[in-house]
Amino acid sequence: MLKMHRSERMVMLTKILSDSPGKVFTLGYFSEMFGVAKSTISEDIDILESTFRNFELGFIKTIPGASGGVIFIPSLGTEKTKDLLNFLCRELEKKERILPGGYLYMLDIIYNPEIVSNIGRIFAGEFFSRDVDYVVTVETKGIPLAFITAKYMNAPLVIVRHYSEATDGASVNINYVSGYSKKVQTMVLSIKALKRNSRLLFIDDFMKGGGTAKGIVELAKEFDCEVAGIGVLIKTAEPEKKLVDDYFSILTLDNVNEADATVKISPSERFNY
Amino acid sequence: MLKMHRSERMVMLTKILSDSPGKVFTLGYFSEMFGVAKSTISEDIDILESTFRNFELGFIKTIPGASGGVIFIPSLGTEKTKDLLNFLCRELEKKERILPGGYLYMLDIIYNPEIVSNIGRIFAGEFFSRDVDYVVTVETKGIPLAFITAKYMNAPLVIVRHYSEATDGASVNINYVSGYSKKVQTMVLSIKALKRNSRLLFIDDFMKGGGTAKGIVELAKEFDCEVAGIGVLIKTAEPEKKLVDDYFSILTLDNVNEADATVKISPSERFNY
Repeated sequence: MLKMHRSERMVMLTKILSDSPGKVFTLGYFSEMFGVAKSTISEDIDILESTFRNFELGFIKTIPGASGGVIFIPSLGTEKTKDLLNFLCRELEKKERILPGGYLYMLDIIYNPEIVSNIGRIFAGEFFSRDVDYVVTVETKGIPLAFITAKYMNAPLVIVRHYSEATDGASVNINYVSGYSKKVQTMVLSIKALKRNSRLLFIDDFMKGGGTAKGIVELAKEFDCEVAGIGVLIKTAEPEKKLVDDYFSILTLDNVNEADATVKISPSERFNY
Repeated sequence: MLKMHRSERMVMLTKILSDSPGKVFTLGYFSEMFGVAKSTISEDIDILESTFRNFELGFIKTIPGASGGVIFIPSLGTEKTKDLLNFLCRELEKKERILPGGYLYMLDIIYNPEIVSNIGRIFAGEFFSRDVDYVVTVETKGIPLAFITAKYMNAPLVIVRHYSEATDGASVNINYVSGYSKKVQTMVLSIKALKRNSRLLFIDDFMKGGGTAKGIVELAKEFDCEVAGIGVLIKTAEPEKKLVDDYFSILTLDNVNEADATVKISPSERFNY
């Protein structure tokens, strides 16, 4: 392996670590890759760690001991979070987004890779310490958000569907009741999708009554799994009491008034800037 | 802005550019951010460019002129592509993946963030030069793949659905015929989803007859848009003639033999290692 200058090593270290969030790399791995002493790598990591910290690019953590190494944990810095939430509120309050029935058009937001990636960083920062084995969502609109969160948490994504397909193989089906409209719906998940005794993080774009989240809690039980976290981009202010208790929401939709053509949406309590 | 050492600037440059693929950053932007001369940034970019090139981490391109700057274009290097394709073939040929009806279980592969990201790098490398405005897919299984490709290409994702929902607003519906099973299906896309005269890249996990891809070509016409590229992870060897001509596939599924419990899958012609 040819020797590199520090600046080249910094490029490689940054790229490798940030491309594989949540994955532990040993100093020995880099030492061999770059053909330099572990002590040199250690100094490189110090620079990386302080640069990431100073500019709120996420966290570089060193895990001591024999199975130790270095790991990148994504997050979104305070300023960037504030900017993103302000942008989202301003954008989602535009009256042209109001749809018949008091719905909001937001597909352009929840399918936008840059926005979704930043929201995923907020979720990853929030849930990283919960030791999650899978990130779960229900098709369709939450999939980009759940996928990028899964990527940032180094966990496989699992997509629960409404109808089974031949390509699922054998599946577990449950019925659940939407928390708000009281409509009975079906959730289908391939039997191969989850290992028993796993910890799940449920990610979705929207929570009204919390029926879908509660459905996921029920479905998890059928796989002997536990929901270790629930994260949603937007919760509605009403009903205040959801069917699940412990969830994290980024924005709160207070109301959509079709008659006045006004929307009121704000960062959730947690983001009290 | 405090002055940084080169190694710290390299960390920042790598992180900023690789977090925003396809986005042009001016030298002036970095010069101001780091408080150093443009010539210094120019030297930094040279180091970045050669490190990325030497280790096949994607491409750093400098665009000359007044509106110029520097841009990161993701790709997957030759060796990593080879490793990925070998891994995928070995993995997908496992007999326990065979489902009744000769289907293959592959949800764990197409929802795995690390694998999907690498496949997305192949698509981005292939299609970057086609000047794509949107990446389009049809729900559900291709969404992670299409989303990460959209992210790497700095284009919004558009998801075509089978049923319309209130949150879509007004939508365009078309019927299309699956190329293989001859089943009539519906595609629904929100009218707000695409700007007229856009160029679309269609990404999907699987192509048998090509009916879905052809449906997307028809749907695009309704929006005065053009399909500028089609990329699929796996195409089937049979039927050889698909309903669309110009498409790029990564793997070719020759056959699934339920009786013998054998699967034959290989890298597509393009990857002739």
